[in-house]
This record gives sequence, structure tokens and C-alpha cells, in this order.
Amino acid sequence: MLLDTAYGNSRVRVMKVKRRHGAHDLRELAVAVCFQGDYDESYVAGDNSEVLPIDTMKNTVYALAAAGEIDEPEAFGMRLAEHFLDRNLKLQRVRIDLAEHPWRRIETAGPGAGSVFERASEETRLAVITANRQQTVVEGGLADLTILKSARSSFTGFVRDEFTTLPEIEDGLLGMSVKARWHYRHTEVKFGEAWHAVRRTLVEAFAAHDSRSVNHTLYVMGQAVVDAVEDVAGIHLALSSRHHHPVDVSRFGVDSKGEIFVPADEPHGLIEATVSR
Amino acid sequence: MLLDTAYGNSRVRVMKVKRRHGAHDLRELAVAVCFQGDYDESYVAGDNSEVLPIDTMKNTVYALAAAGEIDEPEAFGMRLAEHFLDRNLKLQRVRIDLAEHPWRRIETAGPGAGSVFERASEETRLAVITANRQQTVVEGGLADLTILKSARSSFTGFVRDEFTTLPEIEDGLLGMSVKARWHYRHTEVKFGEAWHAVRRTLVEAFAAHDSRSVNHTLYVMGQAVVDAVEDVAGIHLALSSRHHHPVDVSRFGVDSKGEIFVPADEPHGLIEATVSR
Amino acid sequence: MLLDTAYGNSRVRVMKVKRRHGAHDLRELAVAVCFQGDYDESYVAGDNSEVLPIDTMKNTVYALAAAGEIDEPEAFGMRLAEHFLDRNLKLQRVRIDLAEHPWRRIETAGPGAGSVFERASEETRLAVITANRQQTVVEGGLADLTILKSARSSFTGFVRDEFTTLPEIEDGLLGMSVKARWHYRHTEVKFGEAWHAVRRTLVEAFAAHDSRSVNHTLYVMGQAVVDAVEDVAGIHLALSSRHHHPVDVSRFGVDSKGEIFVPADEPHGLIEATVSR
Amino acid sequence: MLLDTAYGNSRVRVMKVKRRHGAHDLRELAVAVCFQGDYDESYVAGDNSEVLPIDTMKNTVYALAAAGEIDEPEAFGMRLAEHFLDRNLKLQRVRIDLAEHPWRRIETAGPGAGSVFERASEETRLAVITANRQQTVVEGGLADLTILKSARSSFTGFVRDEFTTLPEIEDGLLGMSVKARWHYRHTEVKFGEAWHAVRRTLVEAFAAHDSRSVNHTLYVMGQAVVDAVEDVAGIHLALSSRHHHPVDVSRFGVDSKGEIFVPADEPHGLIEATVSR
Repeated sequence: MLLDTAYGNSRVRVMKVKRRHGAHDLRELAVAVCFQGDYDESYVAGDNSEVLPIDTMKNTVYALAAAGEIDEPEAFGMRLAEHFLDRNLKLQRVRIDLAEHPWRRIETAGPGAGSVFERASEETRLAVITANRQQTVVEGGLADLTILKSARSSFTGFVRDEFTTLPEIEDGLLGMSVKARWHYRHTEVKFGEAWHAVRRTLVEAFAAHDSRSVNHTLYVMGQAVVDAVEDVAGIHLALSSRHHHPVDVSRFGVDSKGEIFVPADEPHGLIEATVSR
Repeated sequence: MLLDTAYGNSRVRVMKVKRRHGAHDLRELAVAVCFQGDYDESYVAGDNSEVLPIDTMKNTVYALAAAGEIDEPEAFGMRLAEHFLDRNLKLQRVRIDLAEHPWRRIETAGPGAGSVFERASEETRLAVITANRQQTVVEGGLADLTILKSARSSFTGFVRDEFTTLPEIEDGLLGMSVKARWHYRHTEVKFGEAWHAVRRTLVEAFAAHDSRSVNHTLYVMGQAVVDAVEDVAGIHLALSSRHHHPVDVSRFGVDSKGEIFVPADEPHGLIEATVSR
Repeated sequence: MLLDTAYGNSRVRVMKVKRRHGAHDLRELAVAVCFQGDYDESYVAGDNSEVLPIDTMKNTVYALAAAGEIDEPEAFGMRLAEHFLDRNLKLQRVRIDLAEHPWRRIETAGPGAGSVFERASEETRLAVITANRQQTVVEGGLADLTILKSARSSFTGFVRDEFTTLPEIEDGLLGMSVKARWHYRHTEVKFGEAWHAVRRTLVEAFAAHDSRSVNHTLYVMGQAVVDAVEDVAGIHLALSSRHHHPVDVSRFGVDSKGEIFVPADEPHGLIEATVSR
Repeated sequence: MLLDTAYGNSRVRVMKVKRRHGAHDLRELAVAVCFQGDYDESYVAGDNSEVLPIDTMKNTVYALAAAGEIDEPEAFGMRLAEHFLDRNLKLQRVRIDLAEHPWRRIETAGPGAGSVFERASEETRLAVITANRQQTVVEGGLADLTILKSARSSFTGFVRDEFTTLPEIEDGLLGMSVKARWHYRHTEVKFGEAWHAVRRTLVEAFAAHDSRSVNHTLYVMGQAVVDAVEDVAGIHLALSSRHHHPVDVSRFGVDSKGEIFVPADEPHGLIEATVSR
């Protein structure tokens, strides 16, 4: 029995340079296309007669990036989804994943102004379009947002057993890498504005609350988004918490003010939940 | 509304050295523990009174690795799952993910024999235990198995449209990175033997068939496992196909025998399906 | 014969949180310590009686980070170098490599203000201290600065032979990852100011000139630093150029305005030189 | 003043499939080409009239890989070096770096036999050719060989100061990633045989000795190569030692037999030296 078939192309990278007078605009995306449909014969019998090659998916990304705008990854993804559904009768469900790698214009005067860019950060803006012949669902998202608060974070009152060595923490560092994905309630959203509103809300909620745990922080961040951004139906957060081990320098004869920490990448916590309306 | 909560610890690395007379045994695992249960108060109210800290999960991995064997990741994972379910009344469902990083004993004579090892490959053996208070499900798996066949691979007869540039390929290279996960029918399996049987079957099926596409190859590999390994209920395969672009060296004045290729990591295909009984 | 011995500890990560009233300061460094000296007996005879363990080097980084400031990596590195030379009579030459991973304070109002940070970018600030009993040499540097100009970059008039397929490029994209290391003329420099002056000069020179090649751009950038920053004796640049392949979408029936490019990570150019007074 | 100029292309990947009757041979290399010479005008004036584009270097790798054998990376590198010196009058010194990514033939019977391969390991075989118009120097090497011994490794009698927390270690784990580069005495070497002899000698020396420190182990390994492999003039070793922290499980109420360790990637030791005749 053959189940859950899906095929597609990943990491199709494309950069578009819009040469306006005076300044250029630069966008870089990595696109993944995933087809689900009535393709069992291609698996079982090796019959390719209904198969759109993944190489053609790639070329389609280039062609549609040239023919229209890619400024809003969500809108570009919807155009791709519609194109593939129109052309491929066996296709039942298409998913387009887009990750934008941010570039920032470097502000300089004189010659070259407007056409020089630097890579802004490791953080990426995500968009996911899932469409069938009845419905299109749009999700926004972000990945690799790394944030840390150095005050107002505790972790106390937890379960203790014979394997517990963690002390109660009254005022620790709370560092994490954030991955978020949120559903939009419909497809007529101003995606750029909404994306920035969600991101700002996540960061501000992280800043403003007294954290009692990563679980707690997740809820505060997710709830803030649902409260603040009307277009969001629900948000899934995956917080990868990074430990910062305090170093007791008093054993080295140095006055310990609790200022020195060792950041560690592993093990790391992974805390997940969805906050929905 | 709070949904799909889960929290735990990832990349808990542990190495165990068994010092038998004459030779040592070495195993290295990376373990992830994920708790799902009645923990909403920890999210919504920051109440940790029922929360087992992820730091304690880590210590538990160390303690249970010391107290018993870890040779079969599946069995070690089941012990961890049982331990956590026994101790945590609010826990409804626990998932233990184990990845074994393989070491190979170096065969030498003389002093040092039996206690020297080299890292065998990038490939990892996976095991996933998912347990609630009624049932325990065991999956085996592997990741980062990279294989390539240089004969008997074609891709022809596919859909063509105005974006198609791919030629029909009669005899190409088929390279891929394999990720596999398979369900065992019960928990009384000789996991080591079964794992090796699945891996051998995957590789031999890859070798023996005439590939008409990656979709086709996936099915052949998955079906072979279901046919050959009694204990497997079904297998999910995710094949990340890697392109090897042929170079036409005839334009450089060199006789082109179709021998030169450029391996490319991106874009890459991603082909997935489950083959089940 | 034993030559060029060196031993030390790498990737010693340390974070310092200064809790000032109203706002915290956060710095994160990865430190490497490398000892060269009269340690041949430790290699040849396994005699450790003069060997400072690398574990102690690590603890020393923590202790000195606690006892003083680490705001200027160069100054912290000099303190470490002096400490190690003072204590270890067999040590002839010590090298301290420091990489700062940048955090940016998130500007928020209300509670939490001043103690919330985000990871600023992948770019790192480097400092290298090399000291013996006569002299201390301080270098500044940066790594993983990724920049791109979408105008005023050409590559024409180059050598052609039977293996040439590259066309003349009149107006292409010039993208690169910059690694730079510069020598300071002495150790009494305002290192923070100087570092920012060098970085700004590199970016502005990159922006302002008409590039005829990556070689050319390297020289323009390096010469600009030597001209503009008095404290710099010379600068070594290693430019890793990243190709952006133009896609001819006209074959897809789309009007080609030269706007679509495929970024590629490999192969990549590597262009190096030192510009010195 | 412009110094130490060098330009070239890195990570030029090439795979060659030799289709012999009955079985195929597969080799995969990543090649870097670096030119040093009288190219100052290209930097200072942007004059490309003597510049061979790095894109042409790439094509030359493909063409020469097609025209001859690449089985011995050293010999392929020498052909590349000679080609570039012959054609480029301004070129004074060329360096070719080759890294072979190993594939292993999968032994199967029946159809497909002889043309199916798996990626053997992360370890790479290196070759470096440095040539000017008078002389060609050939180096062999390897990278990412990860080895570990679980017996006969101590570290005792070292310097102690107020920052020391490391205990004397009588019987620990010694794990390391090995990078090695060795000079051949001339260019008429059977490179494949010599490479395997060096690798085997390194591993056997690592296995056979009683290690008193990583410094000590480095010397034993390097000296063994110089003693055993006639064609080697000297060898540079860079040992990146990986810590395996013992876990005291007795505090968890478990009998501690010293069997449980936590592998850590950072910080890591870096021990280097050259052993020469």
C-alpha cells in the first residue's frame, strides 16, 4: 500500500533585482515546491506521463519571478500555487514554502548610493502556501530569530526527584532561537505589514513579561500575537532554548557578581505549542 | 486557546564505554525527550509545580544509560519512556528520539587492540519511541545514507511545457541522501538484526532495479523492505535527490565520453512516501 | 626533528552581562589561546611538568573576564596574553584570537527595557593578539560581512582561451563575503572607534567605486582603509566572491529585463592581498 | 603597497565516472586553484588583460579531468599546475588544493553490480601541489579523521595554579579529529600507496602507544610516519582534541563504573607540530 506520496524541489534560490531610477530593490528567496496528487503510477510503475519534472518546477519559479513581483513572498507563492494547479490535472494539493534571506540597503551618499546591500541577519522570513482546488491557506513565519533577556526570568517551584541537580533560578538568562508559523484568516491580507506586526509583537511580549519558564514565555508571546494582530487565526511557536551556564568565579579568587556565563548549543530545550483564537 | 503543547530536551549526547576484558564497546547517542500532557498551567499561569525540568530529563538519560545497556537504542528508549510515564502523572504521551553516531573498532594487533575506534560515517541509526499509558510504538530509522548509481537510471516520457529545459535522460547518475523511518509491528523485535536487514534491503533494492525516476526508486526500495522484513509494518522514505550535472567537454576540444559531472547540493529534489502492508 | 609546535584551546565561549542600573550590557566572545615555547619535552617525552593544561586556559578566560572588562576584545586579549606570559616561563609566544558575536539591544519601552537583546547578524568582530616577551602586536578584523552591489560592476578584457565560456560582463552583480585583518601601528589605540572606522571605510569604498574585477575591488577597499584610518599599518583582505548566475527567462516566453539571478555558494572565488603603508 | 596577492577559484567540484566493462569507477574531488604572480595591474588599475578568469580555471578543471585520469589527486593536480604555468606567462606560483570525498562500491550480486556506491565517510583525502617555474612540491594529507581510544590515555603531572580545576587523569578517553599534511621528498611517488601507508601508520601509532597528553600523542604519530614511510620528508599534524566529560552517576544513586561520558564539541584543544627528518 502506497500512502502520503509527495514530490518536489527544494532550495530553489532566486534573487530579483529591480532597477528603479535612483535605487535598486533586492529580494532573495529560497523556494520549495511540493506536489501531492494522483501520481501513484509514477511510483508503482515508473510511468512519468503525468509527472512535471522538478527541474521544470525550478524553471517555473524563475519565470514567474521574472513575470511578476516577488516583494511579498506570500503573494508570489500564491501565484506559483495557482499556476501549478492550473496546469497539472493530477495535482490535488500543492505546497509552496518560501524563505526570504534579508538584505539591507547600505545608506551611502555619492556614487553607488541605492545599489549596495549587506546581508542583514541570519533570521529568515517564511511563507507557506497550501492550496487545493477548493481552498488556499496562507501562513507567515520566521526562523532563526535569536533573542535573550538578562533580567526578569526565573524558573522555580518545579518537580524534584533523585535525578534533579538544577537549583531554583531566581534571576537567570533566558536565551532562545524562535521559529514561528502563523495562519492568516484569509488571503486578502497586507502581508508585509502583518508580518512586521507579528514580529514586533513577539519581541515586545518577550521583553515585557516576567518569565517563569520557557513554557510560560511561549504562551505570553503567542497570546500577544493573537490579541494584537487581527489577521492571525493562530500561531505555532517552537522555542529552542539555549543554556547559558553561570560560572562561579569565586573559586578562582575573583569576586563573583554573577556576570559570567558559558553559552552552550547542546543540549537545548525545545518547547512548542499553538495559540489559537 | 492553547493546542499541541510539547516540551523537552534535544541533543542530549551520551557516550558509554563498556570495558570488557580484551576489548571495549563504544556507543554514542544523541537523545531527545518530548513530553505531552496536562501541562497547560505551566504555559498559561507559569505554574511549574508539575513540570519536570528538561535538565532533569538530561540527568535521567545519563542515569539510565549507566544503570542498563544502551546497545539497542530502541530498548534504551523504551526504558526511558517507561521511566518518565511512571514518575510523571500529568504526562500523557512521551516521545524519545535516539540517533546513534556510529564508531567502528580499528583492528590492530598488539597493545591498544580492542580499545581504539574511528568514526564510521555520517550516517546515523535512528530510533523513535512513542508511548502513552496504553501503548508503545517503536520505529527504527536511518538518516544521511548517501548512495549513487551510475548505471540503469533513466528519466523519460515526462510532461513538457514551455518551461521545460530538461532533456530526456536515458542513462544518468542517480544520487540521493536517504532518510527512512519504519514502524515495527510490535515491541518484541530483535532490533539490531531488523535494523541491519532493513538497511541491507534498501541498498540492494536501490542497486538491483532499473530506475525510471526517483519516485519509482522510492517505491521499489520501500516495497522491498515490506516484502523482506517481517517485523516491519510500514516504512516512510524521504529521498533527497542530488543532481549531478553532466559537463559537455566537447566544447573544450576534449573527446566527451559522458564521464564528467558537477555534483550540486541545491536545488535538490525531495520525494516522500510511505509503503505499508 | 620537531618544528612549529603550538598547543592551546579553541572556541572558549564566554558571555558577560553587566547589570548597570537601567540597562544591561551584553558581550559574547569566543576565545582561542595558543602557546608556543619551550615545550618539546611534553611532545617527545610526554613530560607535562611545564604544561599549563588547556582546561586551565579556559578557566583563566572566565576568571579574567570576571575580574575586568571585555568590552574591547583587543584589551581583554592583551590582558590574557600578559597573564600567560607572566605565569609561564617556558612560554615564548602567545596568541589570543577573539571573535565577538554581536548582540543588539532591543529598544522597547516599559518593563524589560534595557535588558532584552537580539542576535544582530552573522558578522563577527575579530581581534588577534600576538605577544612575546619583547613585543605585543594587535590586529583587528572582521569575518562574514556579506555585501553585494547591483550596479557599477563589470568584468571585461580578460584573457580568453579554448576553455573560456564566460562572456564579457558590463553590468553584473558583485557579491562577496569579506574577511579582513588589519595591524595596528601600536597598542594605544581606541580600538572600538578604530574598528568602526575600518568597517565603515570598507563598506563605503565598496559602494563608491566602479568595480572592474574582484581584484580591483579588493585594492580599492584596502587602500581606502590605509588612507582613512591613521592607526592601521596594513590590512589583509580575503574576499570570497559569490556568483549570481543570470537566468535568461526569454526562453520561457517572459520578457527578460536582466532582473533574475541564481545565487550559488560553490564554486566561489577567493581573492587575497595585503595593502600596507 | 600591495603584498601577497593571490586569486583563484575554490570548491570546484567534479565527479568522474569511468565506465569499464563490468564495473564503474567513481571519483569525486573538490579542487581549488590559486594564482600568484605579476598581477598587480589587475588590482591597482583594474586591468584584466593578463587575468585568466576564475570561471576559466573551473572549466579547465573539467576539461583536464575529462582528458586524463583523476584517480591520483596528486597527479591530476600536477597536470593542472603544469597547464596553468604553461599558458600564463605572468603566473609565478600556482597552488592546486584537492580534496577527495570518498565513495565505496557497494558489493551486490546480480544486476546493478559494480555501479552502485555509498558515501564512505566524512574523512577526506587531501593533496596540495605548489609549483613555480623551477620546482613542484607535492603534499599529501587527510582531514576529518575522527579517532578515539578508551584505554591507555592519561594526563598527569601538569602545572597547577589558582585557576586549575582539572583533576589528574589516569585512564581517560582520548578523542580527536586529525588533520595531517605531509611533504613528499620528490614527485615520483606512488601516491595511492604512500597515502594509505601514512594513514595506516597514523592510526596504528595512535592505537599502540600509552598517551601522556595530546602533545605526546602528536609526536608519536608524526614520528611513526617519518620512520615508516620512506617517501615522506615531514608531516604536519593538527589535532583537534574533543572532550568527553565523565558523568558521576553515583549522585543519582547509580553504581558508577566510569562508563558514561558527555561528548562536547566546544571548547576543543588544538595541538599542532611538524615532525621532519
